Amino acid sequence: MAMKLAGVIAAVLTPLTDELAPDYVEHAAHCNRLLAEGCDGLSPLGTSGESISFSVRERIGILESLLKSGLSPDLLLPGTAAASSPDTIELTRHALSVGVTSVLMLPPFYYKAVNEDGLFNAFARIIDGVADDRLRLVLYHIPPVAVVPIGYGLVERLRAAFPGIVAGVKDSSGDFANMTGYVDRFRDFAVLAGGEHLVKGLLEYGGAGSITGCSNLIAPDLAIITKGIGDPSKAADVAAAHRRATRSRVAIVSKPNISVMKAILARRTGKSSWRNVRPPLSPLDDAAVAPIIETLSSL
Amino acid sequence: MAMKLAGVIAAVLTPLTDELAPDYVEHAAHCNRLLAEGCDGLSPLGTSGESISFSVRERIGILESLLKSGLSPDLLLPGTAAASSPDTIELTRHALSVGVTSVLMLPPFYYKAVNEDGLFNAFARIIDGVADDRLRLVLYHIPPVAVVPIGYGLVERLRAAFPGIVAGVKDSSGDFANMTGYVDRFRDFAVLAGGEHLVKGLLEYGGAGSITGCSNLIAPDLAIITKGIGDPSKAADVAAAHRRATRSRVAIVSKPNISVMKAILARRTGKSSWRNVRPPLSPLDDAAVAPIIETLSSL
Repeated sequence: MAMKLAGVIAAVLTPLTDELAPDYVEHAAHCNRLLAEGCDGLSPLGTSGESISFSVRERIGILESLLKSGLSPDLLLPGTAAASSPDTIELTRHALSVGVTSVLMLPPFYYKAVNEDGLFNAFARIIDGVADDRLRLVLYHIPPVAVVPIGYGLVERLRAAFPGIVAGVKDSSGDFANMTGYVDRFRDFAVLAGGEHLVKGLLEYGGAGSITGCSNLIAPDLAIITKGIGDPSKAADVAAAHRRATRSRVAIVSKPNISVMKAILARRTGKSSWRNVRPPLSPLDDAAVAPIIETLSSL
Repeated sequence: MAMKLAGVIAAVLTPLTDELAPDYVEHAAHCNRLLAEGCDGLSPLGTSGESISFSVRERIGILESLLKSGLSPDLLLPGTAAASSPDTIELTRHALSVGVTSVLMLPPFYYKAVNEDGLFNAFARIIDGVADDRLRLVLYHIPPVAVVPIGYGLVERLRAAFPGIVAGVKDSSGDFANMTGYVDRFRDFAVLAGGEHLVKGLLEYGGAGSITGCSNLIAPDLAIITKGIGDPSKAADVAAAHRRATRSRVAIVSKPNISVMKAILARRTGKSSWRNVRPPLSPLDDAAVAPIIETLSSL
């Protein structure tokens, strides 16, 4: 059974030992907590998971450790893109080899200002190289980080060339109109919000769900929104959760958000492996995070 | 003997077979032609060399093939940075293991808006991980592509922490004032222009040389400039070469420059492996390149 590309999907953070190796045990424990808090799925090894800071071998090890811990492959949407197509193909083939058929995929992100032909050919080469009809691809549009975009024209060409495989998009542009544009243009296509403040609006518009970093901290509120949408008896709860989620997000992204979320998880769990990030990210000290924790507690 | 970080260093293009694998034979032949045309050194596997589109294994194979062809390791300044630090360490250690001690290194380029601490820690972790005093690092400042910059503060901290190792910078910003800023601030530091039009000015200002893509096509003119600087009897030749180099560059970058240069080399050499680029780059057809060839011929 393929993963359901809908609902609350957490962009899972990766805890790191003091040597900056993955803390596999805490990573799996965190994933299980997120499911208990209402997440429908887990997207490890995305931007929040610092995937691009790991080697191919490390990324394979992280995914395998989650499966060995007992997590179902049908709950996992790992990021499998790397800067080079051969690495992306290797990581995606590995995911499929261990039963993980849905993956989140960045465009190749080194060269900027490449044209749509080049991006189409890059994805086509990867899909052909993976050569597995089980593959379900969630394209990853995150211009603030990758810079290279996933435009409508590209999606249209990929869906025409690979029907059934190009299954959705994660939109982390922060641009609500761009998200709804995917909904307007494409049937049977999962549009997933990359920002907590836009989840409610996107679901109401016809989007499928969300893949967000703050799910690591506020999954229960995102679950209230997602499960309650369209139910008049839940409207007040949904509105309250939407306000809390939005305010939480604003507080969390007021500083480098991966470091903020990790510092807060270190406090919540007492596990020091949440304090660490791989350079070029920098950890935040308690003083920097204290006001954010105070804001979240007040909601 | 370490490479001399000065003079005309070509940012070598990588010819590719129709299967988009490196054409090792033509790559080495091209390198030898560039040396015959007046290049003092060769920088394979940089941006022009499409390094980031290759896997670690492919990049190792490309560097080894150049050495096996008989090129001296002291003439080579390969790009060894990857998106992840472990890959960068592996590639750099490999280069040193085969006698190539000077390397060109991008900052980690996925996360944007990271702070100087994070970038310092990223480079420090790589240098410590490579753990070889022979290492000579040319930092690679190319904000139009990598977006993440190499600021003066970062260079200052790295040179203080790793004296002797952080040996220079390639500046592909196109910002002449930024280049001269490195010259003003740092002694015994090779400032290398990443743009052909700025080579003459930078050399006159005290820069060490250039590492440029158009060296693949116009090395003789860059050699005239570089060898003639400061010699009154060569002033007219230098000025003429400077005009030709600048006009050539403007023509070449009027379209995606890697594809332009490869298309021109395909014409010049008759080797079809110059026609190919890896996606997300796109090849250019003859019609698109014809006016550029005409301009170069007219100079």
